Amino acid sequence: MKIILDAFGGDHAPLEPLRGAELAIKEYGVEIIAVGDIEKMKKVCEENSISTQGMEFLQADDVFDMHEDPMDIVKKRKTTSLHIAMKALADGMGDAVVSAGSTGALLMGATFIVKRIKGVKRAALGTVMPGEKETGFMLIDAGANAEVRPEMLNQFGIMGSVYMEKVAGIKNPKVALLNNGAEDTKGTPVHIEANALLRQNKAVDFIGNIEGRYVMSGEADVIVADGFSGNIALKTCEGVAGFMTKMLKGMLKKNVKTMLAAILLKNELKEFKAKLDYTEYGGAPILGVTKGVIKAHGSSNAKAFKNAIRQAKIYAENNVSDVIANSLVNEEE
Amino acid sequence: MKIILDAFGGDHAPLEPLRGAELAIKEYGVEIIAVGDIEKMKKVCEENSISTQGMEFLQADDVFDMHEDPMDIVKKRKTTSLHIAMKALADGMGDAVVSAGSTGALLMGATFIVKRIKGVKRAALGTVMPGEKETGFMLIDAGANAEVRPEMLNQFGIMGSVYMEKVAGIKNPKVALLNNGAEDTKGTPVHIEANALLRQNKAVDFIGNIEGRYVMSGEADVIVADGFSGNIALKTCEGVAGFMTKMLKGMLKKNVKTMLAAILLKNELKEFKAKLDYTEYGGAPILGVTKGVIKAHGSSNAKAFKNAIRQAKIYAENNVSDVIANSLVNEEE
Repeated sequence: MKIILDAFGGDHAPLEPLRGAELAIKEYGVEIIAVGDIEKMKKVCEENSISTQGMEFLQADDVFDMHEDPMDIVKKRKTTSLHIAMKALADGMGDAVVSAGSTGALLMGATFIVKRIKGVKRAALGTVMPGEKETGFMLIDAGANAEVRPEMLNQFGIMGSVYMEKVAGIKNPKVALLNNGAEDTKGTPVHIEANALLRQNKAVDFIGNIEGRYVMSGEADVIVADGFSGNIALKTCEGVAGFMTKMLKGMLKKNVKTMLAAILLKNELKEFKAKLDYTEYGGAPILGVTKGVIKAHGSSNAKAFKNAIRQAKIYAENNVSDVIANSLVNEEE
Repeated sequence: MKIILDAFGGDHAPLEPLRGAELAIKEYGVEIIAVGDIEKMKKVCEENSISTQGMEFLQADDVFDMHEDPMDIVKKRKTTSLHIAMKALADGMGDAVVSAGSTGALLMGATFIVKRIKGVKRAALGTVMPGEKETGFMLIDAGANAEVRPEMLNQFGIMGSVYMEKVAGIKNPKVALLNNGAEDTKGTPVHIEANALLRQNKAVDFIGNIEGRYVMSGEADVIVADGFSGNIALKTCEGVAGFMTKMLKGMLKKNVKTMLAAILLKNELKEFKAKLDYTEYGGAPILGVTKGVIKAHGSSNAKAFKNAIRQAKIYAENNVSDVIANSLVNEEE
């Protein structure tokens, strides 16, 4: 199993991606193709005592910047680590790609370099988020497509369901549609029609609409959303969790009594933090394309990269793209 | 100042609305017209030693159910406490209405019985939510209009801004547009055009787009949203806050050490809870109509009703509807 790693994507590149690669090689027995400036990567590995065993290097002279036009990844910026990583995947040099680079560029690269599965209208960004259930839940689309048609939402349901079954190991994942009310008639015309399509869709276990209030409740394993409100839901979750964590921290630092309480709660606070830790959940897959493309969080540390590589491995091992392709064909028949 | 109270709306009617009325009369010196089955209301007041001083009663034989078609409030269900309260407001019997009844019915009643301000395309639901700033922030539209046009979002900005200035006492409230990215070019075509309209709008202090991550940050006093993603954001906030509170509670009950910590944190936990307590923020105004209509939360207790009545009073004292009407006219000139 060979995972292609864009070693120059993210806030802490190339150190943290390379550290993550080292961990993943040891823990999961994968091989890594690290893409980027080879001289720099070798220097960083040497300086930080990172073992390069199981690692190959692939040269890329440039880095794709977060502020560039995502579309440029396809034709204009062929010398960037992100483009070269995608191209290597398309050419069959490895089994999946991991990158913490620009989400937009990853989407464009996945769509036009790795290419969509036949019949897929739009690739989507699926993010696994923490919730009451140990396995969390997948929000799909988490921001790739601000405007969607009902048949796209229906496909997102299939893609998310296959991923959560094959990668997160959930049997018959429950799929819900993010909406402004529980009844089938709620939402915009697009949502009403998507609800009807998902109800008829035999490839998924559709449980109906879900309101924002219940996204974390564990009722659904896959929450289908248009990219606009999916993005709002995702970021609102992050914002509220951050706000409450900040309040909690302030509370524990207030005086001697509260600081004593903080000491008593040390282990539990660690667990609390771990439960909300995105690094535990690894990266966000871009679904609907012919091979595994995993987007790691921009601020990923070594552990987050390691987990994203693990996801990429499971994705490839289970041929998730092929299963999605078959499910789409069956659904259309 | 006379506030009309739908005494039969909400989960705890008529006891909690009447208790809230008693508190508001004492604390704010308002008069209350309590609408509903007079015999029942008088009995509840007697049994619970609720003083009826400053209270008038207005008979309504029926109660509008949460599951009825909201549109029916206008013509079919004229004997309900909600219809009669709205009608009393339209007829000038009081200065504003408070109800914890069906949001949809309140919107329909506000739009077609109390009636929209001239030039207002759509009435909107504004909800004041807790955040880093003491005054919280208003989310408008929080769910009334799933589909909107850019000019409606622009008007929501004006309505929310006037309300937060006049009722929450914030000078030059900062207005932002809920979107999937910070740049002016982000979002659907509706959001892009709304951003442009708000940029040109001299009646509001527009600070640009805001992402879900920052809604609670205090950067904006008014967050304009289409009713669909506004509803998603609102309910996601509630869901995450509930999830984290539950986790926190579980953590504090785990063992002797954590229970001791809970005792040490007693006062701070109270403050923490109060900060997230919707009852502190009162109800949600329906904006864009000719008089004050305040929707109280369905599960409101006496304190929440008292605060909603306080809001209704400040709304009426400051002629918020008239100020909105003038701002709309000035903006159009």
